[in-house]
Amino acid sequence: MTISAYDLLERVREQKPLVHHLTNWVTIYDCAQVVKTLGASPVMAHAPEEAADMAQLASALVLNIGTLTSDFVGSMQLAARAANTKGIPVILDVCGAGATPFRDQKCFELLDAVRIDVIKGNASEVARIAGASVRTRGVDATEVAGDLAALARQLARARHATVVVTGPQDLVAGASQAVLVRNGHPLMTRVVGTGCMAASVIGAFAAVESDRVNAAAAALACYEIAAELAAEQGAGPGTFKERLFDCLASLDRPTCERRQRIQSLGN
Amino acid sequence: MTISAYDLLERVREQKPLVHHLTNWVTIYDCAQVVKTLGASPVMAHAPEEAADMAQLASALVLNIGTLTSDFVGSMQLAARAANTKGIPVILDVCGAGATPFRDQKCFELLDAVRIDVIKGNASEVARIAGASVRTRGVDATEVAGDLAALARQLARARHATVVVTGPQDLVAGASQAVLVRNGHPLMTRVVGTGCMAASVIGAFAAVESDRVNAAAAALACYEIAAELAAEQGAGPGTFKERLFDCLASLDRPTCERRQRIQSLGN
Amino acid sequence: MTISAYDLLERVREQKPLVHHLTNWVTIYDCAQVVKTLGASPVMAHAPEEAADMAQLASALVLNIGTLTSDFVGSMQLAARAANTKGIPVILDVCGAGATPFRDQKCFELLDAVRIDVIKGNASEVARIAGASVRTRGVDATEVAGDLAALARQLARARHATVVVTGPQDLVAGASQAVLVRNGHPLMTRVVGTGCMAASVIGAFAAVESDRVNAAAAALACYEIAAELAAEQGAGPGTFKERLFDCLASLDRPTCERRQRIQSLGN
Repeated sequence: MTISAYDLLERVREQKPLVHHLTNWVTIYDCAQVVKTLGASPVMAHAPEEAADMAQLASALVLNIGTLTSDFVGSMQLAARAANTKGIPVILDVCGAGATPFRDQKCFELLDAVRIDVIKGNASEVARIAGASVRTRGVDATEVAGDLAALARQLARARHATVVVTGPQDLVAGASQAVLVRNGHPLMTRVVGTGCMAASVIGAFAAVESDRVNAAAAALACYEIAAELAAEQGAGPGTFKERLFDCLASLDRPTCERRQRIQSLGN
Repeated sequence: MTISAYDLLERVREQKPLVHHLTNWVTIYDCAQVVKTLGASPVMAHAPEEAADMAQLASALVLNIGTLTSDFVGSMQLAARAANTKGIPVILDVCGAGATPFRDQKCFELLDAVRIDVIKGNASEVARIAGASVRTRGVDATEVAGDLAALARQLARARHATVVVTGPQDLVAGASQAVLVRNGHPLMTRVVGTGCMAASVIGAFAAVESDRVNAAAAALACYEIAAELAAEQGAGPGTFKERLFDCLASLDRPTCERRQRIQSLGN
Repeated sequence: MTISAYDLLERVREQKPLVHHLTNWVTIYDCAQVVKTLGASPVMAHAPEEAADMAQLASALVLNIGTLTSDFVGSMQLAARAANTKGIPVILDVCGAGATPFRDQKCFELLDAVRIDVIKGNASEVARIAGASVRTRGVDATEVAGDLAALARQLARARHATVVVTGPQDLVAGASQAVLVRNGHPLMTRVVGTGCMAASVIGAFAAVESDRVNAAAAALACYEIAAELAAEQGAGPGTFKERLFDCLASLDRPTCERRQRIQSLGN
């Protein structure tokens, strides 16, 4: 893998893409703030009367089913259809998939109805969407038996999407290549919203780079390097999140390039 | 009172209960984060199609009417019924009771329709639910004339519930015993969500301890000791909240046992 | 301009007005917290069954269309009508006006149906509401050609409202006078919610001062002086927001009077 995550971050900072979200009510602020922290522009708009119009203004669309309702997923479809027509990337965070039948059903509805460019979740969520029989514990990951990389690649091919599995190491699988991102810090698991924010960062990077695997890997690397830097300041989970924003806002090329741990898994 | 609040905190950290919430849109992030900070697992899900399913995965259910709507209270009933069937504790934060007739009516609807194990509010909210004629000022407490402890005990008996009245001193009243928790710090009143978070912490503790009075008292003590520690770092209301999370995450046995101020009021 | 912004802040701290909000789900916590930080009392309640009742308890009403839906704007109308009847000020943050036809339409509906005392937005939002042909980029300001002050004054006269245009310098225009507020810090543009919070602060100040121009100018000066102080602590965008709350809570008269930069533009 020869990409420089920082090159893409710089592109985000220069192009300042508008990233439209239909996301959950728990971490909606953090999703907006992380995009703002990148130098990009977040917007959240879910009314059926404007979801499509807002998507047409945007350069990426991020969907997250964390606190979904039927109406809300209806608005997601309207926004995603507009995004598909405009040709901007759509990221779907399958937050909590596997926890209830309703969540699974709505994910499959979305995946069947519109083009999703990046499917993102933790191990048990992605395994469930790939058809494995797993039970997610609320919105936190549970263990997945078997070869997760194979499952992710199979899902990527079946859905013509890039698949991102976050965890201690993140897996990014496309149709023809897969990479591991080995940045990050265990403190991230102590903070609500770190997963949701990752999807927003991927949205911002996918807005400026058409290779989805590279965009997602670079996004995760930058975001997680900022998390490493924040954690090294000795913070607990409360101050850690604020420092993560600070560190991401001020992330520079030498730090990013020295710390980037993106590893190709081959084709 | 011979309980060690820390013993129960340790149990929460070991068992990592899933705490399902149907709560308000103002402090929903903090409710989730405080549960995560305890080492437990928060989940928020309010769609009528999945509220009951999610409650069945959980070990406690926390309801908060802060930004209620009729539909939302409908989902609360679905979740609470599932929780009742499963036998997990249901905590109701009667946030803003006494401010509008609609709030009172919805509280009474919930209390009549499902089993609520812990009723939690500030003085004027609880007094209103106990039938006193008081007017809450928005969601902030107003003064209550008369004997609040007697009112709380009467409510506990009438509703077969543990009643928690938060304030400079917290009162926890069960059918056969009552205790005071004298931890905490005035800075808590300067921060939105400290009351809502208390209910979430009670939920996590009630998930691992069947004696509701002990669970609620221990929860409040641990949470408020963390607040004391955070306040001693000289913070204003902004940084205080983040430090509260840090202090709660790292709370240790000697500190907790030295500071715990739980006092029995007898039977 | 001879007002002391600090005099009005002191009045807010003494009178502790209840400020009712119907606002967006992204920054709702920060809107509540900034009001609490002033020593006042925030409340958020949007159910149609109680929106008017809650407004009648309040001393100011803040509306923000950031994540509007048709139903939500319906509740805004109910609350605003009650506020109009009671004679308390109504602040409308026209968040994202100009981004979609739906947003514009709902703003005009509100402005036509109820009395709005303060219209607040960034340059492109206010220009759109004043009838100019501009396109807002999501919720972030775009450049506005022509004389913004003239547009704002024209809107103030047409709508019998005080018009607040936030930006590097804030313009406050009433029917017969206009002022510039030259406080603030560029870091504010890196933090989601700084604009929404400004509207909440204006609400708290308008609750205690009937001269809307003075109230809005003093509110912005105090809030933005706190931002200056927070920024001087060398924070990035994450810790900056928490420190802004700290600095606003502890803002004192000498600091406020030394830094206040409110400048009359004449009649």
